[in-house]
Amino acid sequence: MKARLISYGALHRFTSEAFQSVGMSETDATTGADVLATTDAWGVFTHGTKSLAGYLRRLKAGGIRPQGHPRIVAEGGGWATVDGDSSLGMVASVFAMQTAISKARQQGIAYVGVRNSCHFGAAGYYTWLAAREGLIGIAMANDIPSVAAPGSRGAVTGSNPLAYAVPAGKRRPMFLDISTATVAGGKVYAAKARGEPIPDNWIIGADGRPTADPSGFPQVGALLPMAGHKGYGLSLLIETLSGILSGAAVTWGIRSWAHDDATLHTLHGSAFLAINVNCIAPLDEFARKVDALIDEIHNSPRADGVERLLIPGELEWERHDRAMREGIVLPVDVVESLERAVEGTGLNLDWSN
Amino acid sequence: MKARLISYGALHRFTSEAFQSVGMSETDATTGADVLATTDAWGVFTHGTKSLAGYLRRLKAGGIRPQGHPRIVAEGGGWATVDGDSSLGMVASVFAMQTAISKARQQGIAYVGVRNSCHFGAAGYYTWLAAREGLIGIAMANDIPSVAAPGSRGAVTGSNPLAYAVPAGKRRPMFLDISTATVAGGKVYAAKARGEPIPDNWIIGADGRPTADPSGFPQVGALLPMAGHKGYGLSLLIETLSGILSGAAVTWGIRSWAHDDATLHTLHGSAFLAINVNCIAPLDEFARKVDALIDEIHNSPRADGVERLLIPGELEWERHDRAMREGIVLPVDVVESLERAVEGTGLNLDWSN
Repeated sequence: MKARLISYGALHRFTSEAFQSVGMSETDATTGADVLATTDAWGVFTHGTKSLAGYLRRLKAGGIRPQGHPRIVAEGGGWATVDGDSSLGMVASVFAMQTAISKARQQGIAYVGVRNSCHFGAAGYYTWLAAREGLIGIAMANDIPSVAAPGSRGAVTGSNPLAYAVPAGKRRPMFLDISTATVAGGKVYAAKARGEPIPDNWIIGADGRPTADPSGFPQVGALLPMAGHKGYGLSLLIETLSGILSGAAVTWGIRSWAHDDATLHTLHGSAFLAINVNCIAPLDEFARKVDALIDEIHNSPRADGVERLLIPGELEWERHDRAMREGIVLPVDVVESLERAVEGTGLNLDWSN
Repeated sequence: MKARLISYGALHRFTSEAFQSVGMSETDATTGADVLATTDAWGVFTHGTKSLAGYLRRLKAGGIRPQGHPRIVAEGGGWATVDGDSSLGMVASVFAMQTAISKARQQGIAYVGVRNSCHFGAAGYYTWLAAREGLIGIAMANDIPSVAAPGSRGAVTGSNPLAYAVPAGKRRPMFLDISTATVAGGKVYAAKARGEPIPDNWIIGADGRPTADPSGFPQVGALLPMAGHKGYGLSLLIETLSGILSGAAVTWGIRSWAHDDATLHTLHGSAFLAINVNCIAPLDEFARKVDALIDEIHNSPRADGVERLLIPGELEWERHDRAMREGIVLPVDVVESLERAVEGTGLNLDWSN
């Protein structure tokens, strides 16, 4: 198998049909397809339609409820708690960010915590929902432990992602989506598959010490937190806002959406913040200042051999715009995963776009 | 000169008297002393009374206004913009966090941006004001550029600090206060003074490439962002919330509180968020869960040779409690700086207790 070109439209249509084939409504299936196909368009292939096969498996087994219906279970002026009803993580998360946007329009800022969610894919997608309407969006989630604390022998926290989007004027939003681990587990798996060593600040081994040998991962050892105690500290704030404050599961109480019994709910938590710029400062003035900051960075002196200085999200937006014009070149691992997703469904992947 | 022991009370009294000696009210001087002496009690000596001499110099020259009076210039349900009136950064920041706490009590969450502030010392102090009242506090600020972007030849953003505090039950609050640079500039200065090389991921040199040679810093080169593009990205979110949204200066528009003309205002921006746990989830239940998370980490397996796993802030609280019982051992650089602050003021540093 090899990398294949597909149009955004064809990929979106297939993804939506796949979700509908396991009992999701057209509306919810479209939401799921919006998130996954946009993520692929950004070039973030680790978190896009590559995960579709896994979500479908869980939707069929009941661990994700195809008819799950996220709802607000408690709320106040600037906050809400959403019960995701074990729906697809994308459905619960879009509902939650829309709730945050709506409340922030009134109060200037809002927090929405979600419990009974599942893996929500790329955190950045939800922040963009806010930024495209002129709000600053922040999103985060907890996950099964895979990351060490400084000095621990094994995993203590999840790779707890954090994302934001800041609306600009003529420029595209500043846009960051990171995990609080030093590196994605996928990079360790890839090196292990190639039989290659890794930098010695990526993981710890069986003795809890940093190692360049990926062969035991993930059965022994764990990822290292980004920037040591700093990433560890940030992951605990994310755990607090996503898991504890929302009433979701935390750390070892969460199940793996990919590996644990597919009939069981994963109990993930997540949190969404929206800040309505236009409440606080005139949006056009704010946007001009963001543009000016972007231009200032673009025009800053560069190190020898460096062609350009990038704004967070700039590469993703360039890939996105190219993908919308020319289609998305799906890497071979995504193609393989989509072919697996199709098996036995009667669905067809339209590579001809 | 050598390290010296001083009681918290004596250090606080001296700091307050020093602020009053340059025209600050007793109330504002007490606020300044609260922040600086507590910071020393936490053992964060880089951001405590070591800076007093510099603040006094600026207060005398007018770059910080001794009678500056921070006030809310615009507000809504969950937000406010504060004009710091170029008062001492601690005075503006305590006012701003108290405003955020008050609004979060009503709405669940609040954002307060501050313009016309100055260097605010340790960001963590303000988050603790929230946590000790049962709220989650988050604080951040911008600063003069000292940190590179990935690929830049010089500084692009400030070391833009980020802090949080999360209230616990029987345990002390989880508490993190970090800069978004890989390392504090002070560590580079110290290696330079000792004529020692530094790890090659701390700074860039004149060509914009990482270097282990600190001799040219800070005239050439810049600090590297923590975790590369991740720290760079976070620093731009902090710049947005602290500088752009508040209407403060950003990047090169900010002046150095320590080195620039002391008659000029520094125009720093900062931002404070408070989340009122008890609006969203029963505080005792939340606190029990935070305690459980802390206990879980404490009981996690440790790497060979590691005696304990630390919670963010745990060391600071242990130092704090010891400092309150036994006094604070001020390092020699702080003692020197305080002796300098005393010169010509007629004030006395009471080392006797």
